[in-house]
Amino acid sequence: MSATTIVIFGASGDLTHRKLIPALYHQYKRERLPEDLNIIGVSRTKYEHDEFRASMKEAVQKFDGDFDAKVWEKFAPHLYYLAHDATKLEVYEELESDLKEIEGGDSDRLYYLSVAPFLYAPIITNLGKSGLNQENGGWRRIIIEKPFGTDLASAQELNKVVHENFQEDQVYRIDHYLGKETAQNILFFRFANTIFEPIWNRNYIDNVQITVAETVDVGTRGDYYDKAGVLRDMFQNHILQLLMLVAMEPPSSFDATALRNEKVKVLNSIRPVKPSEALFAQYNDYRATEGVDPESRTPTYAAVKLQIDNWRWKGVPFYLRSGKALKHKVTKILVEFKSPPHMMFQGAVGSMGGHNILSLCIQPDEGIHLQFEAKIPGQQEFRTAQLQFHYADSFDEPTGDAYERLLLDALEGDASLFTRSDEIEAAWTLFDPIIEYSERETTSSRITYQRGSMGPLDSEEFMEQDGREWRTSGCIHEDHEER
Amino acid sequence: MSATTIVIFGASGDLTHRKLIPALYHQYKRERLPEDLNIIGVSRTKYEHDEFRASMKEAVQKFDGDFDAKVWEKFAPHLYYLAHDATKLEVYEELESDLKEIEGGDSDRLYYLSVAPFLYAPIITNLGKSGLNQENGGWRRIIIEKPFGTDLASAQELNKVVHENFQEDQVYRIDHYLGKETAQNILFFRFANTIFEPIWNRNYIDNVQITVAETVDVGTRGDYYDKAGVLRDMFQNHILQLLMLVAMEPPSSFDATALRNEKVKVLNSIRPVKPSEALFAQYNDYRATEGVDPESRTPTYAAVKLQIDNWRWKGVPFYLRSGKALKHKVTKILVEFKSPPHMMFQGAVGSMGGHNILSLCIQPDEGIHLQFEAKIPGQQEFRTAQLQFHYADSFDEPTGDAYERLLLDALEGDASLFTRSDEIEAAWTLFDPIIEYSERETTSSRITYQRGSMGPLDSEEFMEQDGREWRTSGCIHEDHEER
Repeated sequence: MSATTIVIFGASGDLTHRKLIPALYHQYKRERLPEDLNIIGVSRTKYEHDEFRASMKEAVQKFDGDFDAKVWEKFAPHLYYLAHDATKLEVYEELESDLKEIEGGDSDRLYYLSVAPFLYAPIITNLGKSGLNQENGGWRRIIIEKPFGTDLASAQELNKVVHENFQEDQVYRIDHYLGKETAQNILFFRFANTIFEPIWNRNYIDNVQITVAETVDVGTRGDYYDKAGVLRDMFQNHILQLLMLVAMEPPSSFDATALRNEKVKVLNSIRPVKPSEALFAQYNDYRATEGVDPESRTPTYAAVKLQIDNWRWKGVPFYLRSGKALKHKVTKILVEFKSPPHMMFQGAVGSMGGHNILSLCIQPDEGIHLQFEAKIPGQQEFRTAQLQFHYADSFDEPTGDAYERLLLDALEGDASLFTRSDEIEAAWTLFDPIIEYSERETTSSRITYQRGSMGPLDSEEFMEQDGREWRTSGCIHEDHEER
Repeated sequence: MSATTIVIFGASGDLTHRKLIPALYHQYKRERLPEDLNIIGVSRTKYEHDEFRASMKEAVQKFDGDFDAKVWEKFAPHLYYLAHDATKLEVYEELESDLKEIEGGDSDRLYYLSVAPFLYAPIITNLGKSGLNQENGGWRRIIIEKPFGTDLASAQELNKVVHENFQEDQVYRIDHYLGKETAQNILFFRFANTIFEPIWNRNYIDNVQITVAETVDVGTRGDYYDKAGVLRDMFQNHILQLLMLVAMEPPSSFDATALRNEKVKVLNSIRPVKPSEALFAQYNDYRATEGVDPESRTPTYAAVKLQIDNWRWKGVPFYLRSGKALKHKVTKILVEFKSPPHMMFQGAVGSMGGHNILSLCIQPDEGIHLQFEAKIPGQQEFRTAQLQFHYADSFDEPTGDAYERLLLDALEGDASLFTRSDEIEAAWTLFDPIIEYSERETTSSRITYQRGSMGPLDSEEFMEQDGREWRTSGCIHEDHEER
């Protein structure tokens, strides 16, 4: 049996320390990784194998609550380090002979691009030119970190480079939101149960609201963030992924092709957004951040209304919002149902009037809340109550980090939770114009909101003009309820 | 404004002490009763007004956790007592003059028959003959306690007497199960929410299971119980009431006529039960109970399968079961949904395979549990989890005793939660043959079950022959979970 090798480009970087090696360590501890395993860090910095191991041990100890020294002693020998500048084609000959020496024979190989985005294309090209993309003696796969492009043109350009050197089925584009248990559970919730799918359509659903709220501001990343903005940072990738999971038709299998075909169908059904359907804002002192243009129009908050033109969703708006420096950290999806056609009881204070709301709480509360109307004891009126489910109460199994799952999937050749090239391009096609609106003087009216607030008041008006409101979800965050 | 008088026949009895006076006291405390109020106990035993008040005070103190002496001091003067043998027509002249003296002018009057069932007809007849049924100076209403008849013929006979002396809209037949908050909430759950009604039919529901399990045995009531049996004691009344709430079509209003029309429609749609669709059993030492025939075939446990022949329910069996001396005390309704038409994920140990189950927990756990499939963290399999709602967690308002609600409704002229004559007769029409099967030697095969068990094993086979099983509900009872 051949060996398995994971080559991490950018091994001295933050992601490798914080996520990749801890994730691999965890999966090793659970005996989920192949036995004959090599994890090879590649980076320009000079390290000996043992220095790298020591550094990784420190990282795992820091980011893992229950570090097990005995497991680490067994895991560490699988770690190697090779100092190379992967942007230089001439190092690849040596790189390959180093890899082969470690592998000691045939080996499958997973390349992980954990480097700055501008290095994706050169490294992919070099892997191709040097023949390291060739599947001789085992498969070759490549994981590409986000962001994948900054607009449609750059994403297409990058996909072109990728496809010149790898087949699409060798390529695993990361959106770590898809690796979250609660995101994946959306599909189980919808398709492993009978009772939700019959009402999951325009006949019963009034609107869908997806919120990704952060408490952190842009911090020391002003320079990067001012070029990206919330639309590239959150909407085009994570929020759209959540939307696709909520809106897609049931695929015939959980197979990567079937699943992603359905997701792309959703994207391709979304009506182009009009300027009036998007709202942009900045938190009050964003422009004072180091690295941020003092005249910046880059939004740190946005609300966008999407319409899906298909039989299931026609007329059901999807309201998306995300921002930095907000009051709560929460990711949640609310499905607001229509009112009953005829009401024979009266709603009391604290009732939503029969507008049932299903809240899929992604983080930090991992759970599901179903708001329904219940009779008030001793009265003939109803008030809204909640059916609740929390992952932590029901499952002993820990909800691991997204990277644990995604790394394992890539090793197993399951691309279901990775983004396909057409999916990425469709997402950019949708968001390029919205990003353009955010940069226009006419549509970007320089709304600001107070840091630590719930976002701009205009966002409430944005909903009111449709006769709707941002609903409270029931999701719990940071040790207190939303209301 | 006229006074309001409640005349309780059988005032020295157990129900008056345990339920009626405590219920009236509670509603008085909440200021829900009319101001000019007289509560007049009638019974053969000789009491002075003050003796009756003292005795009732003791009862309320015993059956009420937070007795308030100050409230009682205000409430007590509304209580009166008249010693009469209400079976004797000749006392009614004096009774009326006594009532009028207490009332001191025009008064509405609610007669409450809290007497042995064989006294219903004579008292009703006397009320009619003496003219106390006449609505001069205020309305006259009558509450009739259960049981209402022991079979169709006796119920028809009693209804005849009732209708000779009162209009149907003056008559309030008690089934205290309808006064339970959790029973009433079935209607709110179904009709104040959008999301359940679309799946509340034969397209999505596989079967419905209603369980009323008691831990108590027949105790000192052997003589009564051996004549009644579980079918008269639980099925013909309480369980059928629960079934009607689950199965009825949405009425256009919560009005008594509209509601009861729909309930009767359900009863009239139930297919006559075949002997093979019912199962009867006795707990092991039932026949040794004092007052019980040593050769008795009276069932203390029964399981019955009903079929509702209408568009909503055709082909969806309703399985009913109830028994005494069982392991748990619990009243619950389970709605078992069909499996999803196509499964793309795999169920793990502890999964129901997509058979979602909605549990309406009536008592002692007052709540709702929705069993659904959720992804197991770190795995691509699902396991059954629960969305939970408990009344006590969500509502500060206490779920009062059923009698509190029913007495108030009768005073307000709302008969929605009382049983109409045609409803009673339809229920007996359905159960007369089943009771007859239970008395036949051929169908009553003298199955026994151990006291403290979950019931006879034959009951499991009863379900197995339909390829189904009694499902666990998630309802909590007696401080522990069902499994």
